[in-house]
Amino acid sequence: MIQTQKKSKNDLAAKVTGNTRYLHDMNLPGQLVGGTFRSPYPHARITRLDVSKARAVKGVAAVLTAEDVPHLEFGPTKYKDWNILAKDKVLFIGDEIAVVAAETREAVDKALSLIEVEFEQLPAIFDPEDSLQEDAVEIHPGVERNRPMHVLVNRGDMDQAKQEAHIVRSGRYHSNRIYQGHMEPVGVLASWSDEEGLTLWAASHIPYRARETYAAGFGLPEDKVRIIVPPIGGSFGSKYVLKLHVTSAALSMKTGRPVKMILDRSEDMLTAHPRVPLTYDIEIGAAADGTFLYKELTVYGDAGARIYWSPNVLATACTRTDCIYNFGAIKAEGHLCYTNSSPTTCMRGFGNAETLFAVESVIDELALGLGMDPADLRMKNIVKQGETTVHGYKLDTCNLDLCIDKAKEISGWERRNELPANRGLGMALANHVSGFRAIDPRFDGSTAIMRINLDGELEIETGEIELGQGMSVTYARIAAQILGIPEGGIIVKSGDTGRYPFGIGTLASRSTVMGGNAVMKASQEMQRQIQALATQVHGEGAEFRDGQVHSDGKAFTLKDISAWYRARHAGEEFKVKETYVPDTEMPDATYFGNPSPNYPFAAHVAEVEVDPDTGRTRMIGYWAVHDSGTIIHETMAKGQVIGAVAQGIGWVLMEDFQVEEGVVRNPSMMDYRMPGAHDIPHVDIAFIQEPDPNGPMGAKSLGEVALDPVPGAIANAIAHATGKRGTRLPLSAERVWNMLQS
Amino acid sequence: MIQTQKKSKNDLAAKVTGNTRYLHDMNLPGQLVGGTFRSPYPHARITRLDVSKARAVKGVAAVLTAEDVPHLEFGPTKYKDWNILAKDKVLFIGDEIAVVAAETREAVDKALSLIEVEFEQLPAIFDPEDSLQEDAVEIHPGVERNRPMHVLVNRGDMDQAKQEAHIVRSGRYHSNRIYQGHMEPVGVLASWSDEEGLTLWAASHIPYRARETYAAGFGLPEDKVRIIVPPIGGSFGSKYVLKLHVTSAALSMKTGRPVKMILDRSEDMLTAHPRVPLTYDIEIGAAADGTFLYKELTVYGDAGARIYWSPNVLATACTRTDCIYNFGAIKAEGHLCYTNSSPTTCMRGFGNAETLFAVESVIDELALGLGMDPADLRMKNIVKQGETTVHGYKLDTCNLDLCIDKAKEISGWERRNELPANRGLGMALANHVSGFRAIDPRFDGSTAIMRINLDGELEIETGEIELGQGMSVTYARIAAQILGIPEGGIIVKSGDTGRYPFGIGTLASRSTVMGGNAVMKASQEMQRQIQALATQVHGEGAEFRDGQVHSDGKAFTLKDISAWYRARHAGEEFKVKETYVPDTEMPDATYFGNPSPNYPFAAHVAEVEVDPDTGRTRMIGYWAVHDSGTIIHETMAKGQVIGAVAQGIGWVLMEDFQVEEGVVRNPSMMDYRMPGAHDIPHVDIAFIQEPDPNGPMGAKSLGEVALDPVPGAIANAIAHATGKRGTRLPLSAERVWNMLQS
Repeated sequence: MIQTQKKSKNDLAAKVTGNTRYLHDMNLPGQLVGGTFRSPYPHARITRLDVSKARAVKGVAAVLTAEDVPHLEFGPTKYKDWNILAKDKVLFIGDEIAVVAAETREAVDKALSLIEVEFEQLPAIFDPEDSLQEDAVEIHPGVERNRPMHVLVNRGDMDQAKQEAHIVRSGRYHSNRIYQGHMEPVGVLASWSDEEGLTLWAASHIPYRARETYAAGFGLPEDKVRIIVPPIGGSFGSKYVLKLHVTSAALSMKTGRPVKMILDRSEDMLTAHPRVPLTYDIEIGAAADGTFLYKELTVYGDAGARIYWSPNVLATACTRTDCIYNFGAIKAEGHLCYTNSSPTTCMRGFGNAETLFAVESVIDELALGLGMDPADLRMKNIVKQGETTVHGYKLDTCNLDLCIDKAKEISGWERRNELPANRGLGMALANHVSGFRAIDPRFDGSTAIMRINLDGELEIETGEIELGQGMSVTYARIAAQILGIPEGGIIVKSGDTGRYPFGIGTLASRSTVMGGNAVMKASQEMQRQIQALATQVHGEGAEFRDGQVHSDGKAFTLKDISAWYRARHAGEEFKVKETYVPDTEMPDATYFGNPSPNYPFAAHVAEVEVDPDTGRTRMIGYWAVHDSGTIIHETMAKGQVIGAVAQGIGWVLMEDFQVEEGVVRNPSMMDYRMPGAHDIPHVDIAFIQEPDPNGPMGAKSLGEVALDPVPGAIANAIAHATGKRGTRLPLSAERVWNMLQS
Repeated sequence: MIQTQKKSKNDLAAKVTGNTRYLHDMNLPGQLVGGTFRSPYPHARITRLDVSKARAVKGVAAVLTAEDVPHLEFGPTKYKDWNILAKDKVLFIGDEIAVVAAETREAVDKALSLIEVEFEQLPAIFDPEDSLQEDAVEIHPGVERNRPMHVLVNRGDMDQAKQEAHIVRSGRYHSNRIYQGHMEPVGVLASWSDEEGLTLWAASHIPYRARETYAAGFGLPEDKVRIIVPPIGGSFGSKYVLKLHVTSAALSMKTGRPVKMILDRSEDMLTAHPRVPLTYDIEIGAAADGTFLYKELTVYGDAGARIYWSPNVLATACTRTDCIYNFGAIKAEGHLCYTNSSPTTCMRGFGNAETLFAVESVIDELALGLGMDPADLRMKNIVKQGETTVHGYKLDTCNLDLCIDKAKEISGWERRNELPANRGLGMALANHVSGFRAIDPRFDGSTAIMRINLDGELEIETGEIELGQGMSVTYARIAAQILGIPEGGIIVKSGDTGRYPFGIGTLASRSTVMGGNAVMKASQEMQRQIQALATQVHGEGAEFRDGQVHSDGKAFTLKDISAWYRARHAGEEFKVKETYVPDTEMPDATYFGNPSPNYPFAAHVAEVEVDPDTGRTRMIGYWAVHDSGTIIHETMAKGQVIGAVAQGIGWVLMEDFQVEEGVVRNPSMMDYRMPGAHDIPHVDIAFIQEPDPNGPMGAKSLGEVALDPVPGAIANAIAHATGKRGTRLPLSAERVWNMLQS
């Protein structure tokens, strides 16, 4: 039952044969089923709430309303606007008013149907710009203009740059609300006991932050909350922290019994925390030779009714793309706005991929205006190795130029002006971070514990989380390479805040560089300690190589080494612990600072064919060239790129969460179409592998930078094929058809 | 559910209010009930075994016989004579032939009743001396004379000593088979999964040895077995390692479901592993002035049908008492004998308390013969501080002389010759070890992890086990004294082989000195690291004292200190780990060597009144003086002494496991009488507290040495009261009455 994440050589077989045990497969004795009574209105005052009939239903163990739970200010960021249950107002359709725990699903449903509630509806806001109006209804008391966060960034002399500009292109771009599309719906199994405190089996990939957040919600000491992370059936950012975990915990604390809540697909989608929709007013000016002179950007972010992770998304949107091109003068203003929609949160490449959609689109428009090859215009303005960017990013390695060249080469970029009708080739670049210093203002880095277990196997314990990205095999390979041990036998364990070292978690493309550096340090220390022990036991001639100690013609295995160690340490296992603390800088109030140990880059090219009769875009080809430093595990790396391109294709061409006045119109996988194998072309991948001095074995991150350029590349290919510029995602057949008619 | 041992300030309240969750209270989803089909014969060949009808019972998930389980040689000591289930022969009444797992207790019982088995009975042996006969039936093939272990110890010139002896006293003494009387019957909850391996919730106080033993039984890697130790409801040695754990594991492995087996009191007693019965032929010779010249001892130990822990008991019986008196020449021969009784094992003070019963009885007989005060005779012959004993024990501290003086003083020993009729005062001494180097030939010592948790509480993790002896509060007090932190807030965690450091466990009075030294080292290292961190953060003026860092008039708590540490270590907790490795010697083949860091001593005096009409002994008073070095926790220490005296009173005066030809005649707590509060006199306790250089804070062990002298003291008091010497335990009313008639 103590199912945590664990990589071993049997993982693949377990997954393929359906034997991996996800949260759904876990149960505790005496477990109750939980359910949620949610608001049907986007903004309303609760004038009457009566749960007495619900409480009287046979088999119901508890019905909780706001009256039954603490009212502490909490939330996963510094904006503490969560409540456990809605107190007197509901803020979006789906907002939690009451929760029920009962012996059976049927009793839960009956109780939910007997909850009596009356509302006084309030004016609701669904557009971020509406929420900023002086006369807009107040969503959270005391938050001026419904704007919890306001970003202002200014670098350089904007007035002069504008005067000097030979050409200017601008536009309003919209990135849409998309559903992360995790195959496993969100859920939780919560168990409270006075002795152990609160244990949550929950698929969070930032479980330590989740622990801190939830503990604060109940006013519990942090150590009274333990989060055990089972294998995660997909997240892409949706499963950081979830209110469902908190309400289930409240039910378990009330009943003294374990409570399991797993949403069905429809409830998962209706109450999803989708990607933050962003609207961009963007303008870029350039000199006659194509040198960029300025970039001006205003961003409106729709946080929905409460803050999950949207502030980080907005900050990224306002700054990240300034570290891939030298834009000259920079101005960015960001508005994070409360609306009466479901709270929005992270998704892979957050704030960066969508901004690049806008930036890369405008750059292609500038190239068109200048009569330049879009690749050449990019090459002229990109950041270079050794530079420090306008926001302070220090680029120890940057092979973006080589990426562009390689992408041109493998995509046959020279075909661009000779393509058949309705075909287009588009390019986009991207940068990213490998961890971000500001995720936790208190600290950054990672810790790895490495042990030789009693049976002579090498085990790695980490606080970072595997969510399918290949973290575990990457760590195993790092250790295998340093210690000369076959990687198949290395066990990687994670996903239990009560058992493994602290980790900030899997976000901001942290896991390879942060956790990997910790694993590298631990491997090196283990190597050193084994050699020292070998010398102690077998004299100066003993040598540790290829995973064994060699002495006098004899070879000793890790099991022998373990026994030597235990004999000298009262039976305790051979274990080392190392912490990697990156040499980075916390960005200052102006967002200046070097926040990441290193920075990956990419150049992607997409080829499309647009059907002029239907507007439907077909992917013809895709080429992805990446500078992620040394590639540690090429199979997993290619898998990441192919997966990201597939996800990007879905985002740009088909996925659209149709939310009207807070109501999700397509809450099913039948109506919310995600790409299948037939939608994805062959993806041709190349890696420019210069080792980065700050990466483990020279690696930089890859998981998010692989998605970042996809929307821009496909949008540019469509514009190239059609001569029309799409500015609103998705560029669905209907939109493109309308565009073609305009 | 992940219930392990944990000391916190709420423990006492939980115990007193019945909220402590023992194994009985734990359940897993899908759990089956287990039951055992046991041999009705003490020695028999199985000629037919048919479980097909049992398997067909509705609700039965598995019925296992020897055919269904591995046949590997395993066992907790070097004598590997265990099997999981009896293959073709059964060796004692209760031997496991088949096990059943089913949905309900009723289905288990029905299945057990339908197992068909036929036996060919074989001659059975119940007396160790019978088992040594040349023509005795062979119990285990290839074990000559049914004697797996034969001890021979010779020191000094015995022939000369015998010639010089002025007075000789000898006798045959019998120590009985007693039931440890744990309030919680033995049980286990076993859960196998392919991913996690085997998890056993089991109240073992040597869980790491149990893990190793059970893994070997299944041919599993050791790391595939995890033992989680819930709070233990009494053991006193009965719950080291148990076959029940193994058979439950086999059922879980077969069914893929958790299996719970808990014995009722009757089955617990019928299949108990009682204290090893020992028979002594003993002779001590002394000079005219009372100086001891030699001791000759032959010991017969009844191992029962299989080896649990009896070899260690026999070795102790043959040697330990030679390290309290200087006997001159020493000869000891020990025979460990297989019989067709239930296997016997440890109980508090194993091999020492019963030998002291014999030794102290003979010494009183010598005093009588010499006309000396028994206390004076003892004082003349005891070991002294600074000596190395005949078997190599190095006595850095030994205040046995002060113990004798103090015991005389507080008991009013001078009354001895003026007591009313039927009253008697008896004295006995005892020594013990504080851990024993030979328990695991590979290593000894202990490891402690100390952490400041996120909430600023101090947590100690140990591999040693709390079984009610007060280990946890002792560790908390050591840390509290060194770090200046209130001990009530210190949390001590143990009892999970998958989570806490390695520990040899709670036996041989190890926990205070071994684990305590590790805790002391960890506390000192924590102190050092906190001071270094304080200096780093607040400069040279910062000082860590009284559990806080003081700097510039401000005081910072552990929570602040934790935050400083985490800020510098990527969020990882402040944690230190220290291993204590004692400077001891593995006894050689002649049993010579210094096996313990230090040695506790005691002098006890008992006062009794014997009813001449009934033979019933009433305890009038009891005085216990102990040299256990520094007493760390006086309340717990006194509790240990009072408990030991009570246990000894039960042993000497009333407890007797009536086993005839392998059949337990009194398998209930009604018929096996243990002492109640009315049987226990006031126990007057004094401690001679000279700090020992090898003990944590100067401490030596106490838990077993408190029981060791009790049988001798009471036996001597009865002899003093009656003028008759009882040589067979228990000295029940019936036996004493018979003695009085002789």
